[in-house]
Amino acid sequence: MKLESLKVALIQQSCEEDKNKNIKKTCELIKEAAISGAKLVALQELHTSLYFCQNEIIQNFDLADEIPNNTTNIFCNIAKELKIVLIISLFEKRTKGLYHNTALVIDSDGSIAGKYRKMHIPDDPAFYEKFYFTEGDLGFKPIKTSIGNLGVLVCWDQWFPEAARLMTLNNADILIYPTAIGWDPSDNDKEKERQKEAWITIQRSHAIANALPVLSINRVGFEGDIDFWGHSFACGCQGQIIKMADSKKEEILIADLDMTETEKIRRIWPFLRDRRIDNYKDLTKRFID
Amino acid sequence: MKLESLKVALIQQSCEEDKNKNIKKTCELIKEAAISGAKLVALQELHTSLYFCQNEIIQNFDLADEIPNNTTNIFCNIAKELKIVLIISLFEKRTKGLYHNTALVIDSDGSIAGKYRKMHIPDDPAFYEKFYFTEGDLGFKPIKTSIGNLGVLVCWDQWFPEAARLMTLNNADILIYPTAIGWDPSDNDKEKERQKEAWITIQRSHAIANALPVLSINRVGFEGDIDFWGHSFACGCQGQIIKMADSKKEEILIADLDMTETEKIRRIWPFLRDRRIDNYKDLTKRFID
Repeated sequence: MKLESLKVALIQQSCEEDKNKNIKKTCELIKEAAISGAKLVALQELHTSLYFCQNEIIQNFDLADEIPNNTTNIFCNIAKELKIVLIISLFEKRTKGLYHNTALVIDSDGSIAGKYRKMHIPDDPAFYEKFYFTEGDLGFKPIKTSIGNLGVLVCWDQWFPEAARLMTLNNADILIYPTAIGWDPSDNDKEKERQKEAWITIQRSHAIANALPVLSINRVGFEGDIDFWGHSFACGCQGQIIKMADSKKEEILIADLDMTETEKIRRIWPFLRDRRIDNYKDLTKRFID
Repeated sequence: MKLESLKVALIQQSCEEDKNKNIKKTCELIKEAAISGAKLVALQELHTSLYFCQNEIIQNFDLADEIPNNTTNIFCNIAKELKIVLIISLFEKRTKGLYHNTALVIDSDGSIAGKYRKMHIPDDPAFYEKFYFTEGDLGFKPIKTSIGNLGVLVCWDQWFPEAARLMTLNNADILIYPTAIGWDPSDNDKEKERQKEAWITIQRSHAIANALPVLSINRVGFEGDIDFWGHSFACGCQGQIIKMADSKKEEILIADLDMTETEKIRRIWPFLRDRRIDNYKDLTKRFID
């Protein structure tokens, strides 16, 4: 599928405890996005709940969804109704005692096009994800849809150039990062700014290194010890910002992607031609002592 | 060697045809840098000549230096005299018909600490480097000096996250990019801005991904079809700009690096802990068809 351009919508929202209320609000925002003409709508990480990983609580495993279930059906139905490709994010229950942080891609006919299980799992104070999520075992494979190959990665993956590169080598057309990242309120303003800038910069760098558009979708709102910093954005193949949201507001960020850019930019910046693959094998090492 | 802080100087200059005049000017700038207290002085790519790769001219091979020779001796002597670590960049003649684009690191006692041969070689209109330089065969190895392990890479290498990562896995303390990059005057201002921003962004991203300070040293001046865009800079371990030069002026950019930052930042952003090395082997592939 070769598109010349693609209108996308990134839905940046806050969440509350009630799952049904979250889903209801999200569905209203998805409808608005579709009315604006978006053909691809992407949601933030774990959008049906609060960011529950701030504490290690056994009962939180009740929040997990099997695929398919009522939750996924709601989103499949709305994708079909609106004829959009939709990226949702779930706490996936794979079997008893085995859970993943999973992005699901639903095609415009309502079918599940594929899933991506978060490969890099963080674990830091207030982000206790290694307790909840087993690291993904599906690799870095773009998901084929009617609008192209979607290189969906999730949050912590965004700090790893390897993930973006592998999606590229597997022929992704776009890189997409559903995210839940925020500030620790006890940090000073300079540190907060450095962190947010670093987060934007590294994702723009994946666009540049691979000549692919990048979409990043983050939540807003204060939950427990985290002030989620929003700043969802779309950038083009040279890392240039197309649209960016602010740090506080719920927003449907609409952006037009020029899907002819990758071909053009890779001709002037032919990085894929020049990779020294004969010298990269140590990338599979932890460290070289 | 564990330093708490390191004062560095990046020498951004223009060049002319006369090699001796270039070297004389550079040595004066190095002396000024040392007077300012710099312990590490880094020069731009191919600083003893004009950027000769704009055309494929057989006679240009006469510009190459064997290591050691009179040219390298001049820089070894000045490093010893000023007790600085000095990074120079050469068109290296390895033997008849075999040439490299090589960075040489000279320690503060005047000895050659090591060399790095540019691994990724560009070839684009006005940058015909594949004609002149054989790709490096020394790998991505930091060079040990009295002030730390210097991860020296050269220009085109800066677009490849793999290069920065491999220097990191080999225990680099700083990443350093001698560079010769500029604008094509026929591009419009928006394209020029995108290119310069992409160049800054991707290098800042290497700082972020690896929690290492990054130094980038570029030339200024108009030569043939290239308007070299300067903007030499030093950034910290979260990609924050410490100092940046402008696009036109010759300048000795002095920056203080906090060498305790890597340890601190890797504790809050433990990317090296979480790399999925079990899933990275396809990074050694050209493309996955």
